[in-house]
Amino acid sequence: MSKIAPVLTRLDQDLENSLTRLFELMRIKSISTDPAYAKDCRRAAEWLVADLKTIGFDASVRDTTGHPMVVAHHDGPAGAPHLLFYGHYDVQPVDPLELWTHDPFEPAVREVEPGRKVITGRGSSDDKGQLMLFVEACRAWKAVHGSLPARITLLFEGEEESGSPSLKPFLEANAKELKADFAMVCDTGMWDRDTPAISTALRGLVGEEVTIHAANRDLHSGHYGGAAANPIRILSKILADVHDDTGRVTIPGFYDGVEETPTQVKQAWDGLGLTAEAFLGEIGLSIPSGEKGRSVLELLWARPTAEFNGISGGYEGAGFKTVIAAKASAKVSFRLVHKQDPDRIRAAFRTFVEQRLPADCSASFHAHGGSPAIQLAYDSPLITRARTALTEEWGKAALPIAMGGSIPIVGDFQKLLGMDSLLVGFGLDDDRIHSPNEKYELASFHRGQRSWARILHALTH
Amino acid sequence: MSKIAPVLTRLDQDLENSLTRLFELMRIKSISTDPAYAKDCRRAAEWLVADLKTIGFDASVRDTTGHPMVVAHHDGPAGAPHLLFYGHYDVQPVDPLELWTHDPFEPAVREVEPGRKVITGRGSSDDKGQLMLFVEACRAWKAVHGSLPARITLLFEGEEESGSPSLKPFLEANAKELKADFAMVCDTGMWDRDTPAISTALRGLVGEEVTIHAANRDLHSGHYGGAAANPIRILSKILADVHDDTGRVTIPGFYDGVEETPTQVKQAWDGLGLTAEAFLGEIGLSIPSGEKGRSVLELLWARPTAEFNGISGGYEGAGFKTVIAAKASAKVSFRLVHKQDPDRIRAAFRTFVEQRLPADCSASFHAHGGSPAIQLAYDSPLITRARTALTEEWGKAALPIAMGGSIPIVGDFQKLLGMDSLLVGFGLDDDRIHSPNEKYELASFHRGQRSWARILHALTH
Repeated sequence: MSKIAPVLTRLDQDLENSLTRLFELMRIKSISTDPAYAKDCRRAAEWLVADLKTIGFDASVRDTTGHPMVVAHHDGPAGAPHLLFYGHYDVQPVDPLELWTHDPFEPAVREVEPGRKVITGRGSSDDKGQLMLFVEACRAWKAVHGSLPARITLLFEGEEESGSPSLKPFLEANAKELKADFAMVCDTGMWDRDTPAISTALRGLVGEEVTIHAANRDLHSGHYGGAAANPIRILSKILADVHDDTGRVTIPGFYDGVEETPTQVKQAWDGLGLTAEAFLGEIGLSIPSGEKGRSVLELLWARPTAEFNGISGGYEGAGFKTVIAAKASAKVSFRLVHKQDPDRIRAAFRTFVEQRLPADCSASFHAHGGSPAIQLAYDSPLITRARTALTEEWGKAALPIAMGGSIPIVGDFQKLLGMDSLLVGFGLDDDRIHSPNEKYELASFHRGQRSWARILHALTH
Repeated sequence: MSKIAPVLTRLDQDLENSLTRLFELMRIKSISTDPAYAKDCRRAAEWLVADLKTIGFDASVRDTTGHPMVVAHHDGPAGAPHLLFYGHYDVQPVDPLELWTHDPFEPAVREVEPGRKVITGRGSSDDKGQLMLFVEACRAWKAVHGSLPARITLLFEGEEESGSPSLKPFLEANAKELKADFAMVCDTGMWDRDTPAISTALRGLVGEEVTIHAANRDLHSGHYGGAAANPIRILSKILADVHDDTGRVTIPGFYDGVEETPTQVKQAWDGLGLTAEAFLGEIGLSIPSGEKGRSVLELLWARPTAEFNGISGGYEGAGFKTVIAAKASAKVSFRLVHKQDPDRIRAAFRTFVEQRLPADCSASFHAHGGSPAIQLAYDSPLITRARTALTEEWGKAALPIAMGGSIPIVGDFQKLLGMDSLLVGFGLDDDRIHSPNEKYELASFHRGQRSWARILHALTH
């Protein structure tokens, strides 16, 4: 522990400065899904490059056809491993803005209860706060020791919240430069506020947008109602058909490749004592909406879903308009597990829609990315060492868990660069990522920096 | 015909000037449903008052809690009837603006085929063009004869496109002033471009907005998908349940008060030769969406409907957001016939929704106006005289028809002021009212003025 102790002390002493740096990055409105914020995304990338150069990284903004990547390299001792750390600097949109109690782009530390402080603002947890943990760990290590303990490559993406269209081409074009011994991916969470976790399974994701087209123009519902096809009615019927009364998805072939979770695994999850009432109670609900007869953790970690993420059609403004719309659309996503094939799921959904259209109507589709699920071996030396480091920092055994969300990069690292990933993060379920009033625990920010320093040490000594 | 001939000549000579006046009124963006245009609504009312004063009307802007009314009076000869003419100066919103080929508030006359011109712009047909017909008929009559042939009251409303919240209170508070021998209501249509019509039946309308509330905030669909209730899914299921596979509305009690149309009436409608292919073909459709086994005219004129006029929930912007929304909402309207009761229909729909909610979700409702259907006797002296006048102008027998749309004022006139209404207008089904690229036939504008002059003459001589 001779090399790690002074690094941890340095991180403790530099906490205020590390917050100042994080806030600078959070103030940049890098919303990747909205083209209006393209310049902000570039500014965030440039900010990171400038900051990384102060640590001694050979850092650069790398153009893509979308938002740029940040790539940074730092040498390590001869014989030390080469580690790639991945994060993303883009954030989710902030609407509905009126539900935020504070400006989403004016971050602050606020005390939410005695002894517990949080960082508030968009990106505090997803993912600016999380990615800066590792940067701070490197900064402290370098300041104390004048060097880093491994050869380190950083890859920060600006399109994670908008389907990562440039990521695969970039990995392919720069495979030689980016290939490391393994990757570290940081946008994951803890089990709870006291218990660190390493994620060993991730659901995949298929994003799809469907638009139903009926009449060739908007119609007056008095003049045409009862005669003309209504695309909102057609869309509602189709969406209503996607789930049966038991919460099961009815799309033919949807469950191909889904495996039953072994009883001992389910029992281990049950042992965590997370009830539906507890998990859903925090968000004002009580009844699991998925397949009946399965626990909440099984639904989240080991079962696929079909969710409707947005719907739009006709007159949506204030007041009322007696219109029959020409079209209506929905954004639909599928979370995948085990061996479900994203391309086949997408095709099956499109067929499902087409088969339900009246003969005089049509549907158009827009694909919004797709990635298969990931299942990692959690007894590898990599994961075992990281678990030990986390356990030392938090004083509580790090839990191997699954994740309901998708991190497509993990599959890309495996497929394109032949690298396994270590999935460690310090987010919490109540961080309200993608929602108004996103926050990140100050403890996550502080001890997360210390955790990454410990993991660096554990992997290199 | 001694008195009418010079009036018709005057209208012919003054056509260009009447267009200039209409265009001035159309340029005012009097969108009543959007509070942002409240000042424009008032400007339209003030423009009308100023114009009516030039004819000699005692005209004034009359405040309400919403947009103002315009009321104008002109004396007639002793013993002549007192006629109330009703129209509305407000217009529908213009979104989606990008579908308009011309600025909706920059009206113009355009030749659409050799010998056929149309007036383009929002309100050209609904209802600024139609209401100005009667104003122009009065102007010409006054110019030629120095007087009007009847005591005439004009009532122009500014909230017709947003549920007319101020109308009933205004009629009640000013009943004595507004009560006439009968009313003339102008926002109706012709049978086709050559055939004038008088409407003898109107569908009623119930407007309703429903919002489904699930979690207490927007959720990440990865972290909560499969466990948390999705309000878009719940709303879709409910809307999908509203119609059965035969197109019939399933809400209990919905058809109470609906009468079967007599066979001879249905045969007369069939005799008009309007096929589903012809009626729907013009809007790019071919299959009637309503109850199976009924003709298009029966569906539009004699059957009730449930239509979804708008739907909204979750992320609707560009790109994709993996969110489970906290709420989703729909605007729903019901067209009523015969003796259906608006209040009972509204209550039945709300119960229908409540019964389909998961126990941990809730629904809220917002009423957007309601009015019963109207059925008029089409062999009254009033209608017979008007038919004769229309037939003289157009050289073709005026057709007694029904209307799919609702004109709640007709019911209010009957109930509150004990007046029957004469429903005459010169709109066409392809006028695209409530849609982009609204137009009004120049022939409707010109011969419509002449028609009202002839009707004034027929009713007073």
